[in-house]
Amino acid sequence: MKTPFSRILYGGDYNPNQWPREIWAQDMELFKKADINSATVNVFSWAKLQPDENTYDFSELDDIIALLSENGIDIVLATATGAMPAWMAKKYPEVTRVDFEGRRHKFGQRHNHCPNSLVWQKYAAKLAGELAKRYGSNPHVVCWHINNEYNTGCYCENCEKAFRVWLRRKYGTLEAVNAAWNTEFWGHTFYDWDEIVAPNDLSDGMGFGFTRKTAFAGISIDYDRFLSDSLLENYKMERDAIREYDKETPITTNLMGTYKGLDYFKWAKEMDIVSWDNYPAYNTPWSLTAMKHDLMRGLKDAPFMLMEQTPSQQNWQPYNSLKKPGQMRAQSYQTVAHGADTIQFFQLRRSKGACEKFHGAVIAHSGSGDTRVFKECAQLGTELKGLGDELLGAKNPAEVGIIFDWDNYWALEYTSGPNIDLKYVDQIHQYYRYFYERHLPVDMIPIDGDFSRYKVICAPVLYMVKEGVAEALERFVEAGGTLVTGMMSGIVDQSDNVHLGGYPGPLRKMCGIWAEEIDALAPEQSNTLVFGDGSRSKCSLLCDLIRLEGAEVVASYGEDFYKGTPAVTRNSFGSGTVYYVGTQPDSEGLARILDELKVEPLVRDETPLEIDKRVIDGREYWFIINLTGTPQAMPESFKGETDMLTGREVEELSGFDTVIVKR
Amino acid sequence: MKTPFSRILYGGDYNPNQWPREIWAQDMELFKKADINSATVNVFSWAKLQPDENTYDFSELDDIIALLSENGIDIVLATATGAMPAWMAKKYPEVTRVDFEGRRHKFGQRHNHCPNSLVWQKYAAKLAGELAKRYGSNPHVVCWHINNEYNTGCYCENCEKAFRVWLRRKYGTLEAVNAAWNTEFWGHTFYDWDEIVAPNDLSDGMGFGFTRKTAFAGISIDYDRFLSDSLLENYKMERDAIREYDKETPITTNLMGTYKGLDYFKWAKEMDIVSWDNYPAYNTPWSLTAMKHDLMRGLKDAPFMLMEQTPSQQNWQPYNSLKKPGQMRAQSYQTVAHGADTIQFFQLRRSKGACEKFHGAVIAHSGSGDTRVFKECAQLGTELKGLGDELLGAKNPAEVGIIFDWDNYWALEYTSGPNIDLKYVDQIHQYYRYFYERHLPVDMIPIDGDFSRYKVICAPVLYMVKEGVAEALERFVEAGGTLVTGMMSGIVDQSDNVHLGGYPGPLRKMCGIWAEEIDALAPEQSNTLVFGDGSRSKCSLLCDLIRLEGAEVVASYGEDFYKGTPAVTRNSFGSGTVYYVGTQPDSEGLARILDELKVEPLVRDETPLEIDKRVIDGREYWFIINLTGTPQAMPESFKGETDMLTGREVEELSGFDTVIVKR
Amino acid sequence: MKTPFSRILYGGDYNPNQWPREIWAQDMELFKKADINSATVNVFSWAKLQPDENTYDFSELDDIIALLSENGIDIVLATATGAMPAWMAKKYPEVTRVDFEGRRHKFGQRHNHCPNSLVWQKYAAKLAGELAKRYGSNPHVVCWHINNEYNTGCYCENCEKAFRVWLRRKYGTLEAVNAAWNTEFWGHTFYDWDEIVAPNDLSDGMGFGFTRKTAFAGISIDYDRFLSDSLLENYKMERDAIREYDKETPITTNLMGTYKGLDYFKWAKEMDIVSWDNYPAYNTPWSLTAMKHDLMRGLKDAPFMLMEQTPSQQNWQPYNSLKKPGQMRAQSYQTVAHGADTIQFFQLRRSKGACEKFHGAVIAHSGSGDTRVFKECAQLGTELKGLGDELLGAKNPAEVGIIFDWDNYWALEYTSGPNIDLKYVDQIHQYYRYFYERHLPVDMIPIDGDFSRYKVICAPVLYMVKEGVAEALERFVEAGGTLVTGMMSGIVDQSDNVHLGGYPGPLRKMCGIWAEEIDALAPEQSNTLVFGDGSRSKCSLLCDLIRLEGAEVVASYGEDFYKGTPAVTRNSFGSGTVYYVGTQPDSEGLARILDELKVEPLVRDETPLEIDKRVIDGREYWFIINLTGTPQAMPESFKGETDMLTGREVEELSGFDTVIVKR
Repeated sequence: MKTPFSRILYGGDYNPNQWPREIWAQDMELFKKADINSATVNVFSWAKLQPDENTYDFSELDDIIALLSENGIDIVLATATGAMPAWMAKKYPEVTRVDFEGRRHKFGQRHNHCPNSLVWQKYAAKLAGELAKRYGSNPHVVCWHINNEYNTGCYCENCEKAFRVWLRRKYGTLEAVNAAWNTEFWGHTFYDWDEIVAPNDLSDGMGFGFTRKTAFAGISIDYDRFLSDSLLENYKMERDAIREYDKETPITTNLMGTYKGLDYFKWAKEMDIVSWDNYPAYNTPWSLTAMKHDLMRGLKDAPFMLMEQTPSQQNWQPYNSLKKPGQMRAQSYQTVAHGADTIQFFQLRRSKGACEKFHGAVIAHSGSGDTRVFKECAQLGTELKGLGDELLGAKNPAEVGIIFDWDNYWALEYTSGPNIDLKYVDQIHQYYRYFYERHLPVDMIPIDGDFSRYKVICAPVLYMVKEGVAEALERFVEAGGTLVTGMMSGIVDQSDNVHLGGYPGPLRKMCGIWAEEIDALAPEQSNTLVFGDGSRSKCSLLCDLIRLEGAEVVASYGEDFYKGTPAVTRNSFGSGTVYYVGTQPDSEGLARILDELKVEPLVRDETPLEIDKRVIDGREYWFIINLTGTPQAMPESFKGETDMLTGREVEELSGFDTVIVKR
Repeated sequence: MKTPFSRILYGGDYNPNQWPREIWAQDMELFKKADINSATVNVFSWAKLQPDENTYDFSELDDIIALLSENGIDIVLATATGAMPAWMAKKYPEVTRVDFEGRRHKFGQRHNHCPNSLVWQKYAAKLAGELAKRYGSNPHVVCWHINNEYNTGCYCENCEKAFRVWLRRKYGTLEAVNAAWNTEFWGHTFYDWDEIVAPNDLSDGMGFGFTRKTAFAGISIDYDRFLSDSLLENYKMERDAIREYDKETPITTNLMGTYKGLDYFKWAKEMDIVSWDNYPAYNTPWSLTAMKHDLMRGLKDAPFMLMEQTPSQQNWQPYNSLKKPGQMRAQSYQTVAHGADTIQFFQLRRSKGACEKFHGAVIAHSGSGDTRVFKECAQLGTELKGLGDELLGAKNPAEVGIIFDWDNYWALEYTSGPNIDLKYVDQIHQYYRYFYERHLPVDMIPIDGDFSRYKVICAPVLYMVKEGVAEALERFVEAGGTLVTGMMSGIVDQSDNVHLGGYPGPLRKMCGIWAEEIDALAPEQSNTLVFGDGSRSKCSLLCDLIRLEGAEVVASYGEDFYKGTPAVTRNSFGSGTVYYVGTQPDSEGLARILDELKVEPLVRDETPLEIDKRVIDGREYWFIINLTGTPQAMPESFKGETDMLTGREVEELSGFDTVIVKR
Repeated sequence: MKTPFSRILYGGDYNPNQWPREIWAQDMELFKKADINSATVNVFSWAKLQPDENTYDFSELDDIIALLSENGIDIVLATATGAMPAWMAKKYPEVTRVDFEGRRHKFGQRHNHCPNSLVWQKYAAKLAGELAKRYGSNPHVVCWHINNEYNTGCYCENCEKAFRVWLRRKYGTLEAVNAAWNTEFWGHTFYDWDEIVAPNDLSDGMGFGFTRKTAFAGISIDYDRFLSDSLLENYKMERDAIREYDKETPITTNLMGTYKGLDYFKWAKEMDIVSWDNYPAYNTPWSLTAMKHDLMRGLKDAPFMLMEQTPSQQNWQPYNSLKKPGQMRAQSYQTVAHGADTIQFFQLRRSKGACEKFHGAVIAHSGSGDTRVFKECAQLGTELKGLGDELLGAKNPAEVGIIFDWDNYWALEYTSGPNIDLKYVDQIHQYYRYFYERHLPVDMIPIDGDFSRYKVICAPVLYMVKEGVAEALERFVEAGGTLVTGMMSGIVDQSDNVHLGGYPGPLRKMCGIWAEEIDALAPEQSNTLVFGDGSRSKCSLLCDLIRLEGAEVVASYGEDFYKGTPAVTRNSFGSGTVYYVGTQPDSEGLARILDELKVEPLVRDETPLEIDKRVIDGREYWFIINLTGTPQAMPESFKGETDMLTGREVEELSGFDTVIVKR
């Protein structure tokens, strides 16, 4: 897909409704100064647009859209359904959520609707339609933004009823449900659909707090699928309402990286373009942010929008540090480098009250353009304007794919045992980081992706192996691909029932091993990996006790009763190779293993700089990004080339500096 | 105000109703032995006094009051409304609270009534009136003690209704409410008063547990004001019921130092005398206890009652250590030194059952007078008797005022960002401690206090600057005063909306600076203060990025991208000076700054002893208190003077010893 | 009691209903291979047996029982009431629990019934009777297993009603209830039975989370007694239903060691044989497991069944480590050595779905007999078969008794103060460990046990001294026995009201001391014990301030203001001696004290091996168990003797090896 935009959208959330009109004019001035060319509006205006059940009032929004249009600002138009009006919660208490603790909520917060409330659905769809009818033909409206940061979690009776319908559609019969959930365990057999209840603290919850673990992971996984689908239905409902009036403008909703609640791969199929909100904490590794960008790009295998980032600081982290000079710019280029075609902030003017008043903005409470942050935003605006449209739609070629799968995310973290510290994103990120640090581009791919495009597929903690997955991976390897998988892989099927016959179940044949047992290590414990050349590194968390069934040993354990037995193996399968990493190596150990893959990096320079490449129409755009905060020498590979941003040759990148080289 | 008492009340909570009559006689004996002259009775006797809705039975209380009267014991008479009777909760479930989690409570605990329950109000007022009618004319009743340790927290429907009434009275129109709470944010606009709900876990709560943070701090602050007012109405209702029959006896209720829930400055206006309960933990710094005493004195700018302290240990702390020999005496004199005219214990006889049975008392479970604790109590009783009435009503002159403001307390701790570790009392105490350690008397003063009485006003984290406050501070400084303020000051108005135009908002002019940004440091991070002479000390938590607008630099940052920029400034304003401390210095750094103030200490001796002065009618009473537990030399300033308590000249104070010198 | 079994039962939980029939045949094969001779079935089959209110279907169970019978497998037949069917929760919502937080649960989990639901009771009793009618005469059914791991905790209205009935039976009058609970405190006086509510978070809870502390420990203790009795009534109801049809087969339910919720001594009186489930964590000390075995043996002073242990790992611990080679075998022999006549696993075949799928089993998910775990199980099976029946019913003679008392357990941990770190099991275990490490057999005995059988009685934290207890202990000491007690003993009566007159109350006379005060030490604090010879060791947690009343000093404090005062004392009383340990010594200090007791160990060898002895009909069976995981020399005492298990003389025990010597 080409990007639907004619320029890099640069701007962000804009809430002039929170301000008197005299401020609006100041905003336009400042936007111009900063080369801001887009604004996301109407995100939380439902209460303004629909003051009661029968009245719609678009007068203020008309003015806002007119103002922006006059000023040549591209508009990302939200449907405003991210926060219901107070009158709705008052009149129809069912529109609010029942939480995991079993409590019906009252009016408050945002993102707080029951996705299966017919009342909510009726009014949300109506509003989206009204907006499309009114603004769909405005050429300045370049994108629809449905709702906001959809997230999950209702356990009310309406959801229970809808869950039963969802189950009946999925399983057909109650017998099939009972089988899927293994309800013979603990005598949970259901004889009537109405006996099925939502899995929360009041039913199958195990009291592990925010993990929401229950006695039946299978039920919880299905409920997560159901909740994801329920909100997706909400999204589709609004989308379809818009499409009645506006057939062309791209439609999106802003996602949240590795947010657990929604199966974004499934969602992306319904979205014209992916957009997301990037909010790293002060101590988030850059590699994790990069991985999230790649995941967002991977959802549709296409460039994406950065819908939100903060120009300076956040408010809802425990410690909301400032971005240092240049850091926002560097992070923005990192975003573009990983596939973004827009850079948008939350928000353009800092709100004066309520919980986000300490969230950074392009225009601070001082209202002044004479601030460090504004000037940095303006510099970036000018640079992006300079880049024009030539980067739009560029691709990020990669030879390595890492599988990311929400079903696995849910299943792995719902499971009871063997080790409570097992976290899905953390496990995936450990592999991603290896490639990131070596300038090896990675695609984050779905479980049903086109594996044939890659030389290497990494599938860490591929805990749930659904129907067809093993076969697809086998075909990939047989054809010469390299697969890396390992501990906690191949364990269960789509319903969290174990693949019997020995771990890693359907992956066993191609791995050439049998993991007879899985030892769990407490945080104070570790084991050692011993490689063929005698070199050693630490491993922890879990240790598979492996018996070889054709594979060779890459590393064996150095401690405990399984000392000397295989920990990491390599198996030839067809024309390809399968690595099985039966434990959690430290970063040195993992590097020892993955170094064997011999994938070609973008450059061979050893440098802490991040290096990325986007290509389009034969043009290559190389991003050399210094996220270290301290000066770094320009790598040999780029010596003598010209920086697109400055038009100069760069010898050394100062802290947080970025160079773009076009080849 | 002169103290209403003719002698230092010495005694405490006494619950003979929990004991058979033969014990009462033993109590009287032991009280005499210990020179105990007062008893607080009837604190939790509602169930006894009113066994059902229609019956009142004062027979036992008659006997208790007669007994005490006969024995010359002054009576502090409680109204017994601190714990409702079981029959009331059974018959009228609405009298109990709904908690922050949204749960209606059943009968149990104490301090558990809904302040807006008309049923509870009716019976509480009736009981107070009945008591006043019966005992108001008894000359031994020297003080009324309404309810007990009022504390807040009901979120029921009755409270919601009352909140709406309170809001209408405060704001007049719903438009004004919407504006005050900035409800345009997240589309929270209310179109009907009935749409407003209590801010708890079920509405705007953000899931930060005990912090009770919500998405709209403005709502939460108003709700706290409302809850504080609701209980104050309960208090006034009982007070007025008493005043129908007893026009003279002073009326109080026992407060709890820096307890967050109630605006004690507002409460004190309705109280004849302030009383409070002092329960430091084993590791509470002495300076914090001193600060609380000064705060309690400051509420009415008058001597106060120590209504409760433990003679030995508590029961509800995690670790309930014994007070060491002399420690209770030293703490009692510390209390008197800071303005107390009474010393009362919880309690006189240790209860035999329920949750306070391990709480210390004058008379232990052994029932014996032959205990260390009893003897120490008796010694103190004899000493206080020896002091007679000459100290009563003495003042504590101070040249330094530290502003303490419950609105700021609430607002600062409700805010989302920039740093979760920001705690109001902790911030205030850091300043207080500086003065405490240097024998510099301090008044804790309200935001609307008479600033002109002080040479120095400290206003740390003056986050909320309400109408008129900046002007009052400006007048103070213009007239020659010195103001010390700093980070997180001047940020919001009374409704938690930001003072636009640049921090510190209305304080900006007099501070002569603009805090362009606020960096937040995680616990493992710090920066450095570099003073003019090159000396350095650590700072942490927050760092304002300051631009000078007339002020001079006292210290600048030593690290990070803002290295070299101002961290602490001094500005001449009118005839006075304003210090702005844009970060949290460590104690050495803070001393470097505050040493500039050149306030005159009581004595210049360097000593770990606490030194205080009270004055009345030209007489000075100097307290030299050894809270260190180890022997300390008598400071030069007092060498050769006579200790009022022993009649001797003291060279060295043993651990926990106290000397009072009269000049 | 002789064991009711004719051989050591070796097997465990078996759930063929979760598997297709072809697996059943494989199971029989594997059982034979492993010399498995028993299976516990039907534990969670209620939903299968009773698909609706009117239908019972035993066809599958018939088949299972027939299969096992044909294969000569002894059957432990569960009544299947540990998990209610879904239809029951749907139709009768009252059958589920209301939790401590006040929330009515829906269908889910297991062990989730309200014990006072008449509906639940009706159907549970009916099911037990139907099972007994059908299978009671099957000679292969060797034991009834009622319900499963009974545990407590309902706070619903039905329970409140039943609680009032229970109270009326216990106390007779409301006046007696008020007196017992000291309701004069905080005016909690009840004037009507219906005013009494369950003590949970919504009534008297103090917000200490899982400790469930309330303002009235007396109420909570009675409620725990009531809950324990309520479930015991459930148990008796099923037992009686079985006995209508089956007069002989022993009846049990599986207990959980030191589980807090049920008074197991009271329960054991109603059980024919005690059985329990042993689930140590990866870091549980062996001595604690040994203590639990001894406690389970002590419940009836008779051999017990090990109903459940895992062959390899668990699933519900945070870190579910593998048992190392030999470890399961060593732990099994430890179990036998402490009095078990059965070794049973949870479970025989690992379940394929739901929360226990990572719980170890004899047959793993691989389904193979070719696993380390299976082979170890088979080896043990063969060994146990080799032992035949000669050990069955053997006793464990001991000269030391340690009192364990659920009333004390509850009371000590409900109390508010003096030290939150005071935990009952931990305190008892500190004493147990001393004896364990020195090969000194111990009986865990009830508060109303036959003390005369012992030379030494240890009664740590004998906090609650109920009627008659002090007198019984006095008789024991007068007759020449040695009693060891100490801090937090003799404090309260059966209702948690203090024994007035000085601690340790009714024990004061025989201890010859008065504990005037109790100091509480925070975790970072400690004191020192100074013994007569000047040797010193640390002590912590609590320090009694002791005044001698006839006792001699064993050790005194080395620090704080009570330095030099007695900490540990010895008193002659009648022909015996009473030790009072007024603090928590470290293990060296405790050894210094207990070494004085001069009890004769089984052997005098210094060895980390566990050594136990069982005797029957004049035969002695000595167990030498290496739980260290590393090789240990055979102690001198057993040099040259023959190991029953191998028929060989053993010089050194490898890690986790066991030797049984018969004399």
